[in-house]
Formats: sequence, C-alpha cells, structure tokens
Amino acid sequence: MHNDKRNTATLLIHCPDQKGLVISVTEFIFKNGGNIVHLAQHVDTEKQVFFMRIEWDLADFIIPRDKIAEYFETLVGKRFDMRFSLHFSDVAPRMALFVSKLPHCFYDVLARYESGEWQVEIPLIISNHRDLQPVAERHGIEFHHFPINKDNKAEQEAAELELLKARNVDFVVLARYMQILSDEFVRELPNRVINIHHSFLPAFAGAKPYHAAYDRGVKLIGATSHYVTAELDAGPIIEQDVAYVSHQDSVNALIRKGRDLEKIVLSRAIWHHLRHNVLVYDNKTVIF
Amino acid sequence: MHNDKRNTATLLIHCPDQKGLVISVTEFIFKNGGNIVHLAQHVDTEKQVFFMRIEWDLADFIIPRDKIAEYFETLVGKRFDMRFSLHFSDVAPRMALFVSKLPHCFYDVLARYESGEWQVEIPLIISNHRDLQPVAERHGIEFHHFPINKDNKAEQEAAELELLKARNVDFVVLARYMQILSDEFVRELPNRVINIHHSFLPAFAGAKPYHAAYDRGVKLIGATSHYVTAELDAGPIIEQDVAYVSHQDSVNALIRKGRDLEKIVLSRAIWHHLRHNVLVYDNKTVIF
Amino acid sequence: MHNDKRNTATLLIHCPDQKGLVISVTEFIFKNGGNIVHLAQHVDTEKQVFFMRIEWDLADFIIPRDKIAEYFETLVGKRFDMRFSLHFSDVAPRMALFVSKLPHCFYDVLARYESGEWQVEIPLIISNHRDLQPVAERHGIEFHHFPINKDNKAEQEAAELELLKARNVDFVVLARYMQILSDEFVRELPNRVINIHHSFLPAFAGAKPYHAAYDRGVKLIGATSHYVTAELDAGPIIEQDVAYVSHQDSVNALIRKGRDLEKIVLSRAIWHHLRHNVLVYDNKTVIF
Amino acid sequence: MHNDKRNTATLLIHCPDQKGLVISVTEFIFKNGGNIVHLAQHVDTEKQVFFMRIEWDLADFIIPRDKIAEYFETLVGKRFDMRFSLHFSDVAPRMALFVSKLPHCFYDVLARYESGEWQVEIPLIISNHRDLQPVAERHGIEFHHFPINKDNKAEQEAAELELLKARNVDFVVLARYMQILSDEFVRELPNRVINIHHSFLPAFAGAKPYHAAYDRGVKLIGATSHYVTAELDAGPIIEQDVAYVSHQDSVNALIRKGRDLEKIVLSRAIWHHLRHNVLVYDNKTVIF
Repeated sequence: MHNDKRNTATLLIHCPDQKGLVISVTEFIFKNGGNIVHLAQHVDTEKQVFFMRIEWDLADFIIPRDKIAEYFETLVGKRFDMRFSLHFSDVAPRMALFVSKLPHCFYDVLARYESGEWQVEIPLIISNHRDLQPVAERHGIEFHHFPINKDNKAEQEAAELELLKARNVDFVVLARYMQILSDEFVRELPNRVINIHHSFLPAFAGAKPYHAAYDRGVKLIGATSHYVTAELDAGPIIEQDVAYVSHQDSVNALIRKGRDLEKIVLSRAIWHHLRHNVLVYDNKTVIF
Repeated sequence: MHNDKRNTATLLIHCPDQKGLVISVTEFIFKNGGNIVHLAQHVDTEKQVFFMRIEWDLADFIIPRDKIAEYFETLVGKRFDMRFSLHFSDVAPRMALFVSKLPHCFYDVLARYESGEWQVEIPLIISNHRDLQPVAERHGIEFHHFPINKDNKAEQEAAELELLKARNVDFVVLARYMQILSDEFVRELPNRVINIHHSFLPAFAGAKPYHAAYDRGVKLIGATSHYVTAELDAGPIIEQDVAYVSHQDSVNALIRKGRDLEKIVLSRAIWHHLRHNVLVYDNKTVIF
Repeated sequence: MHNDKRNTATLLIHCPDQKGLVISVTEFIFKNGGNIVHLAQHVDTEKQVFFMRIEWDLADFIIPRDKIAEYFETLVGKRFDMRFSLHFSDVAPRMALFVSKLPHCFYDVLARYESGEWQVEIPLIISNHRDLQPVAERHGIEFHHFPINKDNKAEQEAAELELLKARNVDFVVLARYMQILSDEFVRELPNRVINIHHSFLPAFAGAKPYHAAYDRGVKLIGATSHYVTAELDAGPIIEQDVAYVSHQDSVNALIRKGRDLEKIVLSRAIWHHLRHNVLVYDNKTVIF
Repeated sequence: MHNDKRNTATLLIHCPDQKGLVISVTEFIFKNGGNIVHLAQHVDTEKQVFFMRIEWDLADFIIPRDKIAEYFETLVGKRFDMRFSLHFSDVAPRMALFVSKLPHCFYDVLARYESGEWQVEIPLIISNHRDLQPVAERHGIEFHHFPINKDNKAEQEAAELELLKARNVDFVVLARYMQILSDEFVRELPNRVINIHHSFLPAFAGAKPYHAAYDRGVKLIGATSHYVTAELDAGPIIEQDVAYVSHQDSVNALIRKGRDLEKIVLSRAIWHHLRHNVLVYDNKTVIF
C-alpha cells in the first residue's frame, strides 16, 4: 500500500461532510505537481463527518514543504472547516517507551527498533522500576527511573512531561506500564499515548483481566491497543485481536497465551500510528 | 475423534479430585468387555474437581444397557461421590426450537436437520410470532404460536413447558428468540437451554449489542453461545467466535457480518451438546 | 460502508497508472451534480495499473442514467485508456445456481435469498442430479436437470448457456457443483462464474482436498472462492478463510468443519460480487 | 493444563491399538503411588495406532526415577509393543539455535529465553553468517560461525554435529536459517530439528513463498512450523497459522505481516516440543 522509498507527504483530514471535498483536496495536490500515492476516504454517515488520508510524492511538488500546511489551510482547509495534520515520510517520529516489570512487549518493541523494522526514534525509556534498566542500557537508550507513589505522582509526572518535551518526543507507548496516568498527564498528550490492555475491551476493563476471563469461562481471550484518555481503558481503540482458549487453560496459560497477543496487537497499533494511518474522532478511530 | 458407526455409550463424570479415578472408571469398562473409543479427562486444579468423558463400544460389553447406570453408580460412582450422565450413540436427542422473527439461525438449523448433518429429532418449533410458521410447516415440523406479553407470560411458559414434556424434549435451542425466559422456566431445564447472544460476552450483554459495539468502536465483533441461567447473558459459555470489523462497517454491516457468526457459533454449540461433549460446573463448561 | 437506501451508480475502473486519474473521475461526478458516497482507489505499483471504485448518489446527477456510460467514456475513459463497468444500486443482478448433491452451500444461498439478505434474483437452478429438485421447487425456483457425461457434455453445456441467456443471467454460482466446466463454457462468462473450492488454494487443488489435508497432517483447513477460468482451481481468488483442526479430527470431521467454511466463504464472495466490489486484473482480484 | 510447580514425569507412548492399553498404563502409575496430573489419549482409527501422553506427580512414586523407563518397558511396554519416551519436568531441554541474517525469530526466542518464559537451556548459536554474532554475545551465548558453500557443506555439517554432541544438545531450532540441511544431518536428529517455513504448507513450499503468494493473489498468508525431514518443507507439521491480507498488501507488506506470524508460530512449536506435548507418527504430529 505505502511506498517505502519515495519521499512523500501525508495529510490526515476530517471535517463536516459536504460536496466537493475529494475534488478540492485532489486538485490541490494534482495542480501543484503532486502524484497521489495513496488515497482513502471515509464518511461517517451517522455523524456526517468526512475523513481522508492522502499521500503524494513530493518529487515534482511545487510548494516548498515548509509552506504546504499554510497553503493547504488557506486554499482548502478554511473553506471546508477542516482539521488536518501533515506528515513527511522522511521524518521519523520520536517515541518514548514507558515500562514497569513485564518485559515481553518491551523486548518486542526493542527488537523491531534494533532491526530497523520501523521508521522511529526511541530517545528514552521511562520506568517506575529499575528491573529493565540493563536491557535499555544494552540497547544504548537513555533509561529514566521515576518511582511513583500516591504522594509523589503529580511531581513525578510533571518531571516526566518536561523530559518528554526536552527530548522532542512525539508520542508515548505504554508497554505494559503498570501505573494509571493522571488526567493532567493525558491531557498534555491527546491521542499520543498508546496503551495495550490485556482483554478484548470493553470486556474485562481494569485490573487482572485474565483472572476475570478465567472466572467467566470465556472461550477466547483478547488484547486491545488504544489511545489513553481520562477514563480508564475507555479510549479510542486502534487494534484488537483474540486467541482461542479452552477449559484446559489455567490462568497462567491465559497469561502465557496473552503475552503473544499483547505484543503483536501493540506493535500493530504502533505501526499504524507511525505510518499516520490513524484518525481519531468522537472516541473512535478511522484506520486507513 | 468420535466414531459415527459403532454403537457406543458415553459417560460424562465429575467429582472431587482424588487418586484412583481414571483407573477405576477404565477398569469398570475394560473388565466388563468394553473397548474405549474416546477418553478425555480434566482436573480443575484450583477447585480440585475431576472431569471425564469416556466413550466405549458396546459390542462386547457384558452389562445390559439398561443396567449400566445402576452398575456404574454402585461399583464406582458412589465410592468417589461422582455425578454422571450416561448417553447412547443410537439415541437421537430431541430438541425444541424457539424462534421469533429473525430467520438466519433458524434456517441454518433446519438445513442441518434436513440434510442429516446432526443426529437429532426436532419434534416442535415454538414462537411468539407467526412469521416463520410457513417455513416450519414446509419442513413438516409442528409449529406452536405462543404470543407473550407481561400479563400472560407465566401461563404461556407453563403451557410451553407442558408441551415440551408431552413431546419428550431433551433440550431447547433459542435461535434468536427475542424473549427473556423467566427464572421458573429456566429452572426446569438446567443446562438444557442453549442461547446465542450476538456479542463476545461479557462485553455488550443485554439489548442491541451491535449498536453498542459500533458506538464503542471495537475492531472485532463476536457471538457467544451459552446455557441459559437466571441471570441474563451470564450462563456457562459453550462457544464463542469473532470477526474483524473496521470503521467502514456501519451498524447494518455489523448486523450483517454478525448473522454469519451467530449461526455458526450456535450450531457448533448444538453439535457439542448433541455429542455429549459438554460438562457444566460452577457456571463454566468443560468441552471435551 | 455502502448506503443501502440511496439510489446510486457505481463505476469500476482500471487503466494504466498516470497523473490526473483521481481528479478527472471525481470532477466528472462532482461537476455533474453527483455526491460521492464511496471512493476507493488502488495502484498496483509493480504493474503500474490504477484501480478505482466510485459510487455516487444519483439524486441530483444531471446526466441521464442511460447516458452515463457514454458520457464517461467520451469525457474521461478514452483519454486514459480506461476499462470500466457501470452498475446501478436499484438493479438486482440475476444469478444462476449450479448444484449437484451436496446441499449445504445451496441451503445457505437459498436462506439468504428468501430472507432478503441480498439484492439478487435467482431465476433458475441447474443440476446434473435430481436430488435437490424438491428443495428448489419448494422455493418456487425453476429447476433444470442437465445430466452430464463425457459424450453429452458439449451439447448439454450449450443448452445450459442458451438457457442462461434466455433468463438474462448475469453470473453463475457453483454451489459445490461437482462437474468441471469446459473451457468453451467458461470463456462465455469471464469473471462471472464463482466457484467454492474446499481448500486454501493453491494447496490441495483438484479432487478430495480434505483427504489430502488429512494425509498431510495440516493444522488448519480452508476454503477458497474464486472466479472460474480455464485452468482448474487457478482462477482469481475472491475470498479465503480457514479453521483450526487437530490430530483428533478424522477426514469426516474435516468435511464437517469444512462445510461451514465453504458456505460462509462462498457467500462472502457472492456478496462482494453483488455489491460490485470486485475488479479482476491479471488473474488477481482487487476487493474494494 | 500442566502444573508448573510439581515435579512430574511424562510418558509419550504409541503402539498398535488394542484392548487394555489405558488401564495398563494408568495401573502402572496408580499402583506405584503416582498421581496423574494430565492424561490424553488418541486413536488413529484408520491406521489402528494408539497414542498417549500421561504425566504424573513423582512425590509418592515408589519407583526411583532412573528405573522408571526400565520398569515401564518390562511391565507394560513390551507386552503391547509400545514405543515410548520418558521426560522429567525438572530437566530443562537443551536447544541449539541456527540463524542466518533475518533476526525476528531469533530476537523473539532470545527474549523468551532471557525472561524465563520457557524452561530451556540454549548452550549455543550456530550461523552461516556473522551478522547476529553481537546479539548472541550480548546474551552471553556461545556463537559459532560455520560458513557453508557447496564444497565445504559436508565437513561443516559434520563439525556442527560434533559440536551439538559436545554441548549435549537435545534439539535444534532453525530460526529462519537459510540453508538446506543435508539428509545426513537430518538423519542424525530425527524429529529433533524444528523449522519455520513462511507459508501455509503445502502451499508455497521452497524459496520465496511471499512472492509466490503475492503472485497468486491469495487472501491470507501463513506460517508453518515442522520437524525437518529429508524432503524439503514436507516434514510433520507442528503448528500453523494465517493472517488476512488484501490487494493493498505489496510483497513487502506480506513479508512484514509474515514476520509476526513466523515468530509466533515457531515459538508455539518450540513450546509444545519443550512441554513434551508432541508425538510423531507417519509424518504427522499428535499434539496433546
């Protein structure tokens, strides 16, 4: 779907649905020398909202890249009351990893990072424990220890936010980070904190979902990756998947099978985020 | 797994876990001339409960079939405080179908019945509407119309139960039957009423699960088949499955995709019930 | 994704990839008063081919519907060397069903037809056996018996083709039809004969795939729906799915589990064909 | 299913099917003080072969562990012409990893090893390239470089085999090892070399399966883990799984999605092997 070699720009757009949207956007790109590499649009007919992802080759595009956003806003965006974001394929997003003690998602993300599977920078790792510090250091990534308790939470989170800004972090991934972020923290990073929850939400939100799944006797377990919002485990879902289980599976077996689900589902969500495939609207995602 | 041609008996057993269970049961069968066709056992190590399904060929078995239950109880069951049920492969269970207006599960069950996919008898169909009566009649199956409202519910259910007894019905299948059965009704048929719910329970219990799934923005929808208990959508789960959906799927698309899930999941549950693969304990199922 | 109520037109287009395609097509629709309901495009970057599905509301469209194809060809199609087909949402495609003795796909299609799940007409059923004639007649659909042997194949197929023309059939569905169609027959209906094969092609093409799957000891079985071409089981794949199996599953169990796969996979393929979601190019499908 | 804490022994048995098998085995364990923790049996009714996995707690077992195999052979095995293997839960199998340049399966196995997800020892890593040597060394595992070409293959493999013996290796895992092992090598390690092939075998055996899958236009890709035999990609299948793909997925996208499949499918196969869940018979596996 996406061309990995060309230098492209991507617009993610949403606005009230109305006539002339597709043609106005494609005209802006075509008449200025852009060759469309990928186009997908979607209309939420219930809410009358239009969504679009359009990616084009910059080779012959006549508008300088630092002027594209301004020109688009002036010539198209304003007219249709669009909200949009602009991304360039040669800019690697900067991701901070938050971890606690469980290492499986952490290892999986690091392996993809080290082997160049993703176009991403990981300038720092933050944890409330020191357990995974040696792994971080082995990979040559800054590790910051922020132990959290109810007394120091506000100031620790403030320090974390400052550090994220200092390192120009674009988004945060909670790789089985076992702390609930405060509303204040989350508000600073809207749709930019990705969590992995170990159930098929909305079932089994909150603590110990595998134990709850075991007690309920479900025949499949799940994992859900979502953007973090103020309400626990209730943010916009990016990815979900499930695995079959049976009466033979103890809680430990669910945890074991779940680990594989969690790491794959989290990584797929990160992939979509990195490729600018995700639009969020009304607590739901459009994944192009 | 199961031999379709041989004449077999099947014991479904559960009891407190203890030493000597497997050997005592297998000895009972072996020493009396039975050849074991299928054996599966399971121990719930948390609750210390033992479960077993054992099926054997009756060809050389020296205990007459009408005495097997008595002999087993006397010689093995009592000693270990077992609860068991005994089934014969040449006896087709008798199933009553409850339907309302939605036909997809109904058609699917009838197609399997007519084509001999299952070993089952369907002596009657019960509905609170007349819409599907012509389909029932076309298949030559008795159709009984029991319109239900809050005033007549108790007496209609009583009449239904009487009819089920008169027709020697072994179990009931709710093929998208849009009425909630009373506790009294359910209590008469413990673990013998199979329902299909159109979500991956425990998510989206109750009414309009596809609308709720759409509103939550889940990336997969599900269906769950379970035995009906007094608490709505909370009975022991027999089968579950899911299908992937995306932002492109409207509520109608979820309903459309869900229909296929529902009919397959319900039919798999019926299959397990008919094959005597299911043991229920503590609101969970063991599916051998 | 698709609006079921509006009266729409759909264009399926493919042509050599080049600049200006999206804008030219959207301009044609927009400037003539059409409101785009669905747009999807795809570029095969390897073969440099552009594909598009565009659906628009006809309410305010100023070109009369019987002139749309001509105008589009003149104003857009010719310029870009496009091949396209045009479809209207208020025209139900006409489908002929070919069956032999296995009834599960047949029942499933008829149930969807009778319950109005699809917008389709089924003017006739053709079979090389009489087994399913009573079912066809019960549904009030013409049933034609064409027994086939190697001596009469050519003339029987000619008679079938004539009948299909006489009944204005748009496409044919082979619902486990156990005869291989001749090249001559297939050539008359390019990309208009849908078959269901009971394996995940290209594995286990040809006869007895479940036996072959059993012998190979695979851990999943599959079903594949494809357009029929001259080469057996080698046509463009529309839909595939799989189910998990284990050593416990005999050949009969594979056949039993496979039946559910087959009917679901075939019906999904028919759905896509009916919704004009399918473009065929170079023996592959684009499913919008 | 399996208890992780108790000290257990496991017997994997197969023999011609006959009366008295289950009772004889369970009697051997029960009468000598063993408490059965897990029992599963299977009969291949076509080939008349009986398979069993039985695991029991050694706490009160009166036969010394170094005599169990001998006693079982004398008292039970010989009588029924059984082939069996005996395993103890407190003995970690020793695994050698063979890798080339692709790191994803390698990273995944190492992460599980380092985090203690498996009970296994990895005494050495063998590669035909030096690319992954730094990763091996970081984990403190011996790395041996055996470059292979057609002239030195026989002697290099002989040296590898010698090294495997010197390190008491129980089994070998080919984690995307891009060399075909000679028949001589494979014959030394029957059912003890696990490979991951990047297709749903038997489709797309041999080189470049993702390219072949792309060219065929399949709607799902797969991965297969199997024991290596003399015939390429034709050994007994342990695990398989698939992922959905579409026309939007380029060959590179198939490769990307396939990586996740490969590492999960390989790891599940290793898990089953480590837990002594696998019996091989007639080029097929029974996975208990």
